[in-house]
Amino acid sequence: MVRVGVIGGGFVGSAFVQLLGDPARHEALVDGATATLELVGVAVRDLAKPHDGIDPSLLTTDVEQLLSSDLDVLVELAGGVEPARTYVESALKRGVSVVTANKALMAESGTQLAQLAHEHGADLFYEAAVGGAIPILRALRISLAGERMNRVMGIVNGTTNFILTKMTEEGSDYAGALAEAQALGFAEADPSADVEGYDAAAKVQILSTLAFGTRLSGDEIAREGITGVRDVDVEFARRSGYVIKLLGVAERVGDHGVSRRVHPALVPLSHPLASVNGATNAVFVEGVKSGPLMWLGQGAGGEPTATAVLGDVLDAARNRVSARHDVPFTGDLSLHYVPASELSSLFYLSVDVIDRPGVLAEVAGVFGRHHVSIQSMEQTDVADQARLSFLTHRALSADVSATLDELEGLECVASVGACLRVIDGGAA
Amino acid sequence: MVRVGVIGGGFVGSAFVQLLGDPARHEALVDGATATLELVGVAVRDLAKPHDGIDPSLLTTDVEQLLSSDLDVLVELAGGVEPARTYVESALKRGVSVVTANKALMAESGTQLAQLAHEHGADLFYEAAVGGAIPILRALRISLAGERMNRVMGIVNGTTNFILTKMTEEGSDYAGALAEAQALGFAEADPSADVEGYDAAAKVQILSTLAFGTRLSGDEIAREGITGVRDVDVEFARRSGYVIKLLGVAERVGDHGVSRRVHPALVPLSHPLASVNGATNAVFVEGVKSGPLMWLGQGAGGEPTATAVLGDVLDAARNRVSARHDVPFTGDLSLHYVPASELSSLFYLSVDVIDRPGVLAEVAGVFGRHHVSIQSMEQTDVADQARLSFLTHRALSADVSATLDELEGLECVASVGACLRVIDGGAA
Repeated sequence: MVRVGVIGGGFVGSAFVQLLGDPARHEALVDGATATLELVGVAVRDLAKPHDGIDPSLLTTDVEQLLSSDLDVLVELAGGVEPARTYVESALKRGVSVVTANKALMAESGTQLAQLAHEHGADLFYEAAVGGAIPILRALRISLAGERMNRVMGIVNGTTNFILTKMTEEGSDYAGALAEAQALGFAEADPSADVEGYDAAAKVQILSTLAFGTRLSGDEIAREGITGVRDVDVEFARRSGYVIKLLGVAERVGDHGVSRRVHPALVPLSHPLASVNGATNAVFVEGVKSGPLMWLGQGAGGEPTATAVLGDVLDAARNRVSARHDVPFTGDLSLHYVPASELSSLFYLSVDVIDRPGVLAEVAGVFGRHHVSIQSMEQTDVADQARLSFLTHRALSADVSATLDELEGLECVASVGACLRVIDGGAA
Repeated sequence: MVRVGVIGGGFVGSAFVQLLGDPARHEALVDGATATLELVGVAVRDLAKPHDGIDPSLLTTDVEQLLSSDLDVLVELAGGVEPARTYVESALKRGVSVVTANKALMAESGTQLAQLAHEHGADLFYEAAVGGAIPILRALRISLAGERMNRVMGIVNGTTNFILTKMTEEGSDYAGALAEAQALGFAEADPSADVEGYDAAAKVQILSTLAFGTRLSGDEIAREGITGVRDVDVEFARRSGYVIKLLGVAERVGDHGVSRRVHPALVPLSHPLASVNGATNAVFVEGVKSGPLMWLGQGAGGEPTATAVLGDVLDAARNRVSARHDVPFTGDLSLHYVPASELSSLFYLSVDVIDRPGVLAEVAGVFGRHHVSIQSMEQTDVADQARLSFLTHRALSADVSATLDELEGLECVASVGACLRVIDGGAA
């Protein structure tokens, strides 16, 4: 008998409790856990709210009491850093294994909490914190434990992928696509956690900690959201054989460097990530020997997320029955953060200029002075101005920034409209 | 210290031994196993052959001696059913955990060998047997242990996918694409194991045993290869928004039925499997609550396969250190095999007829008599005949077979050229 307590009675909590109680799954759950799971209680904030599918006699608002009721596994689905961290720490210190879907907490304190779990002989599993139902974390941690990763690149935020997909498929502008996402419940009234890339950055923090063993802080992630992506950029990308996606990236740079960043990028249509549409999430991984691997699935939603939580609970229960726990890997302290400005990439740049002879030569001269080589250029008329859209060869980010700075100072340049990275089909 | 022995010094064996000895991986391997792995010996058939990257002092032709040298983990990479099964049984009976990439052996005897492993307190892991580097088996077994699967559908044979991709992208006919695959080493001189679907069927056997807990025999898989797929079928599919793929499918039918089959099918371009090209493998899984999930990666090759073997070895080593093993799930003995003829599907049919008035009505009448409803029809001229290409609404396989039988007996029908299933975009 493995005793399970749950904190959080929202969508994921309700769905998880219903999975546990599903008679059609009973045998599979006993098999998976090599023991019977007993649901001890579900701590919620407000008993008066409806909690679908949860036996009312299991509901409590007293978390402390739940934590002290001889649990084997605590399932933390409250979300947010506090008071979730206090609950998780309290459970781990009692030797109770913890399963959580809390990406904010895991991004901020995952390494320390994993260490605390280990010291007290407990497990800390959080498969549901990245990519919802997608079983990517256990794969990185167990199946690929012996592999060295070159790059992890994911579409890990469903809201922004929904918005960018709308812009691509229907030609909507950003504001219109955001409004539609909000109307459909895919985006919050204040969408900044999603559209500014904070949510994706938390997932990059978690993924890169597992894939590379970095011990870098969550601040060491360059972050750029999608609020500046224009319909004309999406349209140019499409004409040129690309689609714009918000990517979370962690990649090895040399032997001891790691670049970590969130930004929109032009992804070639031939790349497996290009066809990941709507609220679907996907993570693309390149190992030194495994070659490219990709996972795709539902990145959110109560039921998909609950299946990932359940897998973790069964794994923790099996360990409990064997009186063991998973030992966290030693971090690779030699790894340092490489700022995005030090990396080279292909770039797409869009510049609006006064439409008069000699301007292109002037603009091209600026590129040349900063060693940014132009691969292709397209000129389109926009009212009384001309729009110059460039795809560059591989260039250093810092050089591209210097190019943009000088362009913005030119009298003939009305505005710089876009500067986005382009994923190299060959390298990707 | 965990003692590892290897049988097989081919591509995968060499790559695996090199991974074990890679100094850059040393710490990660110790961490992953929570112990140091010691390579005890590598049994090969012929010492005179070159074995890249394997210390010659470790090579032996004496498998029995290797098996009796106090191993913790045996890595079986010899391939084929015998003598591999004898070696694996011998190891398991001594309580030695076994990691294998042997799909033929696992398809034929996986359930019995897993039971033998359990009886002797050992692990039997075989991640590399399906999809090479793709970590799908552990995901089904552990991460999705609590989920009920509706369907598993995969492109699990690289050779046939290479051939079909050539036919799609370059308009080659089957014979030409096969010859190219053979010239490039993607297909064997005798390609029948691949092109007749035997290899894919072995993988369906392994996947469905894990995903559904079936205890059905490997014979209970309907199997149709790609030798009958014509360039005109590929071209019709493309015009109609589909691409032809060889699929391995296992799906739940009602509460206690499972359909298992390998066949070429028209896959809508919007489906994630449609863009899986060349020798890449992918497995698409639909859980009741998880929704669709997909894995993609290198399905073959020494190094990718070796990374999957290494992940298994580290997992087995960790279990060994904890003096435990993974307990195999109880099978679901209530599940029975549902023959493909009892299933309904959308179909693509191609019929060559004598080009004269009234023939279409005659042919359409046959469809109607067998309750096969036509969704669309295209007529093209082929020399002095006409080719009628039909896409049907959902129809029972047995009804479609009866339709074809009656059509073949008609005086106006020159030949039936194709009868392929069409994957429903909505249902997929």
